[in-house]
Amino acid sequence: MKPNIYPVILAGGRGTRFWPRSRRTTAKQVLALEGKRTMIQQTVARLLPLAPASRFWVITNPDLRGEIRRQLPKIAARQIIAEPIARNTAPAIGLAAYLLLRSDPAAVIGMFPADHVIADQEAFRKAVQHAARIAAAGENIVVMGIKPTRPETGYGYIEAGAPRRGGGHRVRRFTEKPNLEKAQEFLEAGNYYWNSGMFVWSARTLVNALREHFSESAPLLERIAAAFGTRDFEKVFAREYPNCENISVDYAILEPRSAKGEHHSNLFSIPADFGWNDLGSWAALYEHHALARGAASSDRNVIEGAGGYAFEAEGNYIYAPRKFVAAIGVNNLVVVETDDALLITTLQRSQDVGKVVKHLDERKLKKLL
Amino acid sequence: MKPNIYPVILAGGRGTRFWPRSRRTTAKQVLALEGKRTMIQQTVARLLPLAPASRFWVITNPDLRGEIRRQLPKIAARQIIAEPIARNTAPAIGLAAYLLLRSDPAAVIGMFPADHVIADQEAFRKAVQHAARIAAAGENIVVMGIKPTRPETGYGYIEAGAPRRGGGHRVRRFTEKPNLEKAQEFLEAGNYYWNSGMFVWSARTLVNALREHFSESAPLLERIAAAFGTRDFEKVFAREYPNCENISVDYAILEPRSAKGEHHSNLFSIPADFGWNDLGSWAALYEHHALARGAASSDRNVIEGAGGYAFEAEGNYIYAPRKFVAAIGVNNLVVVETDDALLITTLQRSQDVGKVVKHLDERKLKKLL
Repeated sequence: MKPNIYPVILAGGRGTRFWPRSRRTTAKQVLALEGKRTMIQQTVARLLPLAPASRFWVITNPDLRGEIRRQLPKIAARQIIAEPIARNTAPAIGLAAYLLLRSDPAAVIGMFPADHVIADQEAFRKAVQHAARIAAAGENIVVMGIKPTRPETGYGYIEAGAPRRGGGHRVRRFTEKPNLEKAQEFLEAGNYYWNSGMFVWSARTLVNALREHFSESAPLLERIAAAFGTRDFEKVFAREYPNCENISVDYAILEPRSAKGEHHSNLFSIPADFGWNDLGSWAALYEHHALARGAASSDRNVIEGAGGYAFEAEGNYIYAPRKFVAAIGVNNLVVVETDDALLITTLQRSQDVGKVVKHLDERKLKKLL
Repeated sequence: MKPNIYPVILAGGRGTRFWPRSRRTTAKQVLALEGKRTMIQQTVARLLPLAPASRFWVITNPDLRGEIRRQLPKIAARQIIAEPIARNTAPAIGLAAYLLLRSDPAAVIGMFPADHVIADQEAFRKAVQHAARIAAAGENIVVMGIKPTRPETGYGYIEAGAPRRGGGHRVRRFTEKPNLEKAQEFLEAGNYYWNSGMFVWSARTLVNALREHFSESAPLLERIAAAFGTRDFEKVFAREYPNCENISVDYAILEPRSAKGEHHSNLFSIPADFGWNDLGSWAALYEHHALARGAASSDRNVIEGAGGYAFEAEGNYIYAPRKFVAAIGVNNLVVVETDDALLITTLQRSQDVGKVVKHLDERKLKKLL
């Protein structure tokens, strides 16, 4: 039996590390950082072969809802939901579970962040279908694990346990972001995977898990879902949602569940290898572009400009789409220009861009946020 | 007797080292690189106490004449002359000498580049008046020498000889741009001065010098001057001027004159100390701004933007006047933004900006020139 996949796209983040391009109303997920389509448009496009548009849900924030509706005309506006307040991923996906269970008791939910890049679409869809089959076969929770390619300290890891017949394996443990030494160990061990933040489970499994591990917030989410489609929805949503616990689905459900032990948790991971990149910083975007160009650019500059000239300049990421860019004697810089702002930093320091946003927050320079 | 000073402002240069701000029609001299007034407006303003506007002449090129006329409404349009073709400074100042001699046989010409910064206006004017008195007293040629403050290898030097009664001294020798070792010697010797490119001499002295040292071109210049004010002027100018020798006044007149020997050349220099800076590059402009701000800016950043934030960033020059500028973890950079271009380089490499202009020339990217 083919599972009824319902993609739930989580698009509430602010993506401050892509300032000055990312702003409250133009966060990372609605930007075309790579290619012509925006991140969320790409996310939807790669899932559309798996489910009709009528089955897609998007959970975002009020600042972004208008833009997302414009970008995703195929998705019914009522299924693009704006949280009255950010509450991290557990309440968001929990609400989706209650909503979907009402209309389709056999619904299988795929939870996807709206701002990841995936190179091999076909491999991705096969992995999702595989995960959906596992999820539909029982009270199973499936995590998409990414085969690590470097000792990355910015991600959580999944430790794989016993192999599962038909592919994938049981999850032995989730681990926090490791230090470099630990990350190196994980990489060498061979049975650790990056936690991609993509999960697949049936609505029923998820609702049961919410009742078990998220018991204080679960009734509030159920109440909100019950009001969906009625006049009272916005009111109930605004009243109940802020009282939900502000916590990620990893901490709220997956970690307590994994504590039951590898063979009782019903947690599975499928190792995925489809060119995944969460584009966590300007440096990650640079790497993604530089990789795509490969040998085409011997000086490894990625210049998105109206023409450009580099002289003894290497490995720079420069975004100034309407300008002729000239780089002389500079290396490994990140320069990003928008109509009202200019960011100048290095690839190595691009994680610190959030400091600018913090500064602007503190100064209440709202136009720049 | 008070000399009749006629300021002749040479404003024909292209100033490519200030690309992307300097362009063919907005060269360095018509830019407000420092303060609110443009370089040429500042040049005129600092001289106006010495001579009425009716005595000012400007020699420029056809690309800039319109803009200069707009910027200098007090100067008669007919006295803002566009050379049909660039021929360096000897023909330009020579033409001025013939023009002025016709109307005022006692004219004393002060030749001033249009793109220098001078901090102490009063000291500057005193020096010019001093030079004009020496020039009016005989067949004397006076060079404004700048007391060197560093072993600069980018300027020519004047070696001072015997002191002159009443101030100044005879010129012993002009020297080319020295290497660093020589420049260091000059600095330590104490009797060397930077050649500022500012000269003062009577029109009669200059015309005599042209006949002696610039004999092939002098009759052409005389012919052009004779046509001034007639219908034929533009035609004669366009016909004769290109045949003049393409050479600087230093090489055409001052060096051959100095070969007569210190006591026979009638070459004098007055040592000037009025905060002179020829702003030869973005780095020089940065130094000028940084010096002006002094202790006000502990991180030594000069950010000309609509607001700015620097985090672990020092010694950068950033020009993006309509943008909020954020600099993180970068040092000693030069970033300059205009409507159609973005330059990214370092203070140390800012002399190489001309390479961009050369590239644009070769590619015939005229809009960017």
